[in-house]
Amino acid sequence: MRNGTLLYAQSGGVTAVINATAAAVIEQARAKGIKVLAARNGILGALREELIDTSKESAAAIRALAHTPGGAFGSCRVKLKSLEADRARYDRLLEVLRAHDVRWFLYNGGNDSADTALKVSQLAKSSGYDLTCIGVPKTIDNDLAVTDTCPGFGSAAKYTAVSVREAALDVAAMAETSTRVFIYEAMGRHAGWLAAAAGLAGNGDDEAPHIILLPERAYDEAVFLAKVKAVVDRVGYCVVVASEGIATADGRFVADAGGGKDSFGHSQLGGVAGQGPIGPEGALGAARLPAALGPPPGQQDRLGASAGSGQGRGAAGTEGPERCDAGDRAQQ
Amino acid sequence: MRNGTLLYAQSGGVTAVINATAAAVIEQARAKGIKVLAARNGILGALREELIDTSKESAAAIRALAHTPGGAFGSCRVKLKSLEADRARYDRLLEVLRAHDVRWFLYNGGNDSADTALKVSQLAKSSGYDLTCIGVPKTIDNDLAVTDTCPGFGSAAKYTAVSVREAALDVAAMAETSTRVFIYEAMGRHAGWLAAAAGLAGNGDDEAPHIILLPERAYDEAVFLAKVKAVVDRVGYCVVVASEGIATADGRFVADAGGGKDSFGHSQLGGVAGQGPIGPEGALGAARLPAALGPPPGQQDRLGASAGSGQGRGAAGTEGPERCDAGDRAQQ
Repeated sequence: MRNGTLLYAQSGGVTAVINATAAAVIEQARAKGIKVLAARNGILGALREELIDTSKESAAAIRALAHTPGGAFGSCRVKLKSLEADRARYDRLLEVLRAHDVRWFLYNGGNDSADTALKVSQLAKSSGYDLTCIGVPKTIDNDLAVTDTCPGFGSAAKYTAVSVREAALDVAAMAETSTRVFIYEAMGRHAGWLAAAAGLAGNGDDEAPHIILLPERAYDEAVFLAKVKAVVDRVGYCVVVASEGIATADGRFVADAGGGKDSFGHSQLGGVAGQGPIGPEGALGAARLPAALGPPPGQQDRLGASAGSGQGRGAAGTEGPERCDAGDRAQQ
Repeated sequence: MRNGTLLYAQSGGVTAVINATAAAVIEQARAKGIKVLAARNGILGALREELIDTSKESAAAIRALAHTPGGAFGSCRVKLKSLEADRARYDRLLEVLRAHDVRWFLYNGGNDSADTALKVSQLAKSSGYDLTCIGVPKTIDNDLAVTDTCPGFGSAAKYTAVSVREAALDVAAMAETSTRVFIYEAMGRHAGWLAAAAGLAGNGDDEAPHIILLPERAYDEAVFLAKVKAVVDRVGYCVVVASEGIATADGRFVADAGGGKDSFGHSQLGGVAGQGPIGPEGALGAARLPAALGPPPGQQDRLGASAGSGQGRGAAGTEGPERCDAGDRAQQ
């Protein structure tokens, strides 16, 4: 084992488990007698030499780090350019690494962070400085190159599935006279893993979610509306999970939050559920039908004690109650 | 104890605990030997004589009901008009109640449901039919008349506080180069209880939430922006909790989702965080500053092992990294 220190830094949006990764890095390095420095606010801390000496923390504190929310050392949204275009900063980084005898640089982030780790590794090699660089995977979207399942995806997938299931139960209870089409917007600009994970919420065609819109498939409004209508007719309501990144065949995002750009220059998406046919003025928003009442008492079968599929309801009697915006599906 | 059955119905949006109320009603009635019928989909089920006989369910099933999500018997968004304007439906309701010898009518909902229970009570009295009507409180907003703390508020308050705390930790980790002003929209059209409950997330002026906007106070953009700026200058980021119902002194809602009405004819609110100064084109969206790097290695104090308040950072070195949209607050 060579001498030297290990530098760890966090980058990009924090996940539920990014600190668990940090704890694992620190504990494993400690076990091998390697001192770990953590950069404050990601690569910025490395460039500024804002380095936290984790060896001052107890084993219990590092163990607790695994269950600590947020990003314990601070993260950042900063992308370095190419080696040529950003040479001053790469040189600065190598200067800081040398000053602290850093021989392992672990950058905990997404594809851009792995790319930065690669460039630093190339620079160190060409400079004759012995340095091992590792991009440590982190994302909720599960869209990292050559990474099958990424830390951060599992917890976000569970959250998505649980949230969809909870919301679907509320929708089911209210569907006759309130929301019949519920749309859950899942993150994942170009990767449908999180939206697909919502499928864990139910079993079979009649359980929510009934429709999942993935960014990998072109969004077709007519097909979507026909599917929604079919589900509402059959089940009584329809729970849709839409990826924020769904786009039409010509590449136009369905949801564009309106001019905003994030710090990487990407359009801010969001609000897919309020767009086009889904919005209050669209085809789904306009689907309002009158409610109806039942026949005289005693002239229909009693319902059993368990909630059923909506079959066996009474037929229409008088006109619907005030402001009731949905129909009685059981007029059959 | 007189003979007769008890009719229970759920109304309005379901809460996390509406089924716990149902379970309590059924268990207490059983203990007194009273049979409980539950209307399917609220008052609609009573009008249609869609009544679920809960006596067919085991004690264990009723106990489990207390922990069952959604609205087990179905709820509805239906508001009956005055006795005069909606006489046919009130008469129909009384007809169904008589047919099943219902002597207790418990309507589990908000202010409108309590009003319906009152009207049914008045009608029964004027008809010489012995009927006890009770409005059983249910809301997440805690805005029911003559009700101090309503079932449904506590769980929503806890969810709000926990969500704000979780989000604030993520914002804190990212604030230097990403979101500095985070706005959480809380429900409560005219009641600030849920927004105020977010205050449980932190202690003191520097812990999130830093600003809570209540619908009971007029929203003043200039005052709000000045407060946000002061918090960002002092803490580095600002977490705001805004009630969906905040309005300017002249009564204009800050967030109006754009023309949609709910089934009670109220404007659909939502999206307060994307409006005016808060939106991507507004004063807060435009607050972007260049980032900066540090001095040569070894010329500044090392940071301690614990994350601090942002004091003691290095001064600016070279120009900021690509697409970094926030400033280095530590140039002091």
